[in-house]
Amino acid sequence: MAKDKPKKPRRPRAETPKGFRDYFGAEVRARAEMLARITEVYHAWGFDPLETSAVETVEALGKFLPDVDRPNEGVFAWQDEDESWLALRYDLTAPLARVFAQHRMTLPTPYRRYQVGPVWRNEKPGPGRFRQFTQCDADTVGSGSVAADAEICAMLAEALEAAGIARGDYLIRINNRKVLNGAMEVAGILDPADPERDAHRRGIVLRAVDKLDRLGEDGVRALLGAGRRDESGDFTPGAGLGDEQAAVILGFMAARGDDAAATCGRLRTLVGGSRTGVEGVGELETIAELLDARGAPGLIDPSVVRGLGYYTGPVYEAELTFETLGDDGKPRQFGSVAGGGRYDDLVRRFTSETVAATGVSIGVDRLLAALGEKGRLAAREAGPVVVTVMDRDRMADYQAMAAELRAAGIRAEVFLGGGNLARQLKYADQRRSPVAVIEGGDERSRGVVQLKDLALGARLSAEIESREEWAAQPAQAEAPRGDLIGAVRSMLARSLDEGGA
Amino acid sequence: MAKDKPKKPRRPRAETPKGFRDYFGAEVRARAEMLARITEVYHAWGFDPLETSAVETVEALGKFLPDVDRPNEGVFAWQDEDESWLALRYDLTAPLARVFAQHRMTLPTPYRRYQVGPVWRNEKPGPGRFRQFTQCDADTVGSGSVAADAEICAMLAEALEAAGIARGDYLIRINNRKVLNGAMEVAGILDPADPERDAHRRGIVLRAVDKLDRLGEDGVRALLGAGRRDESGDFTPGAGLGDEQAAVILGFMAARGDDAAATCGRLRTLVGGSRTGVEGVGELETIAELLDARGAPGLIDPSVVRGLGYYTGPVYEAELTFETLGDDGKPRQFGSVAGGGRYDDLVRRFTSETVAATGVSIGVDRLLAALGEKGRLAAREAGPVVVTVMDRDRMADYQAMAAELRAAGIRAEVFLGGGNLARQLKYADQRRSPVAVIEGGDERSRGVVQLKDLALGARLSAEIESREEWAAQPAQAEAPRGDLIGAVRSMLARSLDEGGA
Repeated sequence: MAKDKPKKPRRPRAETPKGFRDYFGAEVRARAEMLARITEVYHAWGFDPLETSAVETVEALGKFLPDVDRPNEGVFAWQDEDESWLALRYDLTAPLARVFAQHRMTLPTPYRRYQVGPVWRNEKPGPGRFRQFTQCDADTVGSGSVAADAEICAMLAEALEAAGIARGDYLIRINNRKVLNGAMEVAGILDPADPERDAHRRGIVLRAVDKLDRLGEDGVRALLGAGRRDESGDFTPGAGLGDEQAAVILGFMAARGDDAAATCGRLRTLVGGSRTGVEGVGELETIAELLDARGAPGLIDPSVVRGLGYYTGPVYEAELTFETLGDDGKPRQFGSVAGGGRYDDLVRRFTSETVAATGVSIGVDRLLAALGEKGRLAAREAGPVVVTVMDRDRMADYQAMAAELRAAGIRAEVFLGGGNLARQLKYADQRRSPVAVIEGGDERSRGVVQLKDLALGARLSAEIESREEWAAQPAQAEAPRGDLIGAVRSMLARSLDEGGA
Repeated sequence: MAKDKPKKPRRPRAETPKGFRDYFGAEVRARAEMLARITEVYHAWGFDPLETSAVETVEALGKFLPDVDRPNEGVFAWQDEDESWLALRYDLTAPLARVFAQHRMTLPTPYRRYQVGPVWRNEKPGPGRFRQFTQCDADTVGSGSVAADAEICAMLAEALEAAGIARGDYLIRINNRKVLNGAMEVAGILDPADPERDAHRRGIVLRAVDKLDRLGEDGVRALLGAGRRDESGDFTPGAGLGDEQAAVILGFMAARGDDAAATCGRLRTLVGGSRTGVEGVGELETIAELLDARGAPGLIDPSVVRGLGYYTGPVYEAELTFETLGDDGKPRQFGSVAGGGRYDDLVRRFTSETVAATGVSIGVDRLLAALGEKGRLAAREAGPVVVTVMDRDRMADYQAMAAELRAAGIRAEVFLGGGNLARQLKYADQRRSPVAVIEGGDERSRGVVQLKDLALGARLSAEIESREEWAAQPAQAEAPRGDLIGAVRSMLARSLDEGGA
């Protein structure tokens, strides 16, 4: 390996870089199973898989700042041999825009794809905040129809249920950027004929709207008006809206009624003076009807924000509605586990064509954590049956036993390390093996095997020093060698029964 | 997206970086299915999944050159905020060594893991040579037993068969670095008491041995002796071995006999004077016996090299033995699709402990290509049933049809783009849809749907301009709306029958 030894013989640290982590065993399998269930839904709905390269040119990602030599700090970037900048993708949407622009002559339109894979963010790591994480996206590119947005919402609902979130434990909340734009028009801070004007004030409004959860209505009202001083004394300048103007924005956010018709009725009254706003309300009504027709649980909710600045039409998110108890005994809500919306400007960067697109991204780690809390993951998987090695010269016989077990559908391995029986049983415990198989010279001559029920005997095994002691324990059985499979099967069934009780 | 517009308004190129590629649809699914079959075998044998971070510290990868500011060119590397160097992993073995060193107190020993994932090489891209590709590895860390090597070989055979390579279409060929070392000892260029001596000559011998396939025995003999001049006139200096010395090395490479016993007998005679060599022959015999006992197809073959310099004991590779016809009509062999061996020094970099390890890596893309050539991949998957949209106001009805089809296990979608029926049928053809469903006002009033058999009608659809023309084509059927599922099912069954004929 290390042909060129460093001059300083300091040992390298065996550590992941800060903000990165490894996933082991059961966690890898639980995530893979959840993703397989979700992507099977996407596939059944006619979406096709896509795997883009992890590395993109920085210019394709659209993160290049002209004023500095180095791309901005949100991405991991480096210079290639030819001096061009390369970077790890920071999401799966920017690569989709690049793929569609690159292959638009051969891809079907609409192009509907799903992609699962890691993305990387060059951000300060923190507790539970990693610089590599997995996303699971589904998007429809090349359809401006609001039916495409409704389809994504309905498919997301089916995907969540396939993953193990029961109907009633989640809500798909839907809003529309166009309605907020309509409210801004009515409030007099968006002139469709001169959209650049008041852009700065609208930015403040968007950020204020996004903080409703945290600051409450009064805090948002202050930010819409003169500004807000927080507890620490820091002052955030406001958008300078008058009371009536602020009332329009606050009315928009509070417009949720008992059902979609009521909500849309209120919104229509609020934004009646704006063509864009009315169009947006119409889109929300259509989405609500389409979801209703399918019995999919969608909710029109004007308080959903999701970085509205980025989206151009409908936005949606999936919220988990159940509570669990946190480690501190306090109720804890998982909140949003998926979100997305319509973004019609992404491909234009490459081709000058505006291509309509809408799509959703599932927060894989958060959804997996929620399933774990809800007890909806498969019980932590047991390890393999371990065939212990009592006589190293008879390795072929032990391997034949393991092969027989596997042929019968039972996960099994031969112990390959060193050490006496106690060491081997400790290993089996560490692997969470349900059963250990033991065949020494005595068993061999009598044509039997000993089976140790490790699920039952786990507590005791750590204390056992010798084979004689072990033989005195109850969690064992002797079986004819010819009945190895049957005997292991009934021990596994017993431990399953007891584990389930 | 692009808040900060570049000063030059040049459009970004929609391209993957040089040496990178995207994978679409059927290819993504075929690879995922192959990997699922392989990893299910690994899992059944008691191996646990592992997913390491894609990014490692350069020092953990062991690629840092002390003389330059930048790590060497084999990896993609960049400096983190704190000035430390990070890099994308170039294989899955170096991260395994790091993981084992980092978690050795809590991991079971032996630690047996499998990992599938992309790796990155900062190399000059070429035809069929990419800078990101997928590896699929299985390793046993912490067992020095030759039974661990035999297990990997037997498991590899089972994994290949699970992937679709038939018994008889592949061979597991096995060699041992210790036997070559023994031959070097006998040839007088390796003194166990002073291993540094003659290291340079042994390097030349290793490289010569590695070229047997390309240069033939005479070419290798020249490189073992005074040196070799190739057709272009370039001279490569040789190892300077005398004829008798060279005969030992050449004898080692040609020692393959009719069976393992014959091969090992010859090798034992050749390296009888070397303790290491005799030990290596014994290991080969044990592996051959263990594989034989399992009926696994292993072959002791001293001409297998696989970068013997890196390995410390047994090495093995899986070779595909069938020929296919290349595009030029000439027979083509796939050769090696997997390789590995024992490497006992990898963890020592971190901990100063020598940890025994052995493992294999499957070349995923090459194996997938071989399965494709052999016709062992599932036939190229058909697309979804496409429900066309004849009346945009009845989107909910069309979506209900697609939902019914999916509930019956049939992949289905509603067309979400714009355009007339001809455009929609073109889309369906492009998706390789087997069946299009059509329900206009007339069908609606009569309570029927039209089904178009696209497998049959593919040739014609591109020429069809109007609905009337289409109705005159034979590849269609009318069915009661209530019998949608049954009618689609029989059309799918018919096209399957004909596709298979």
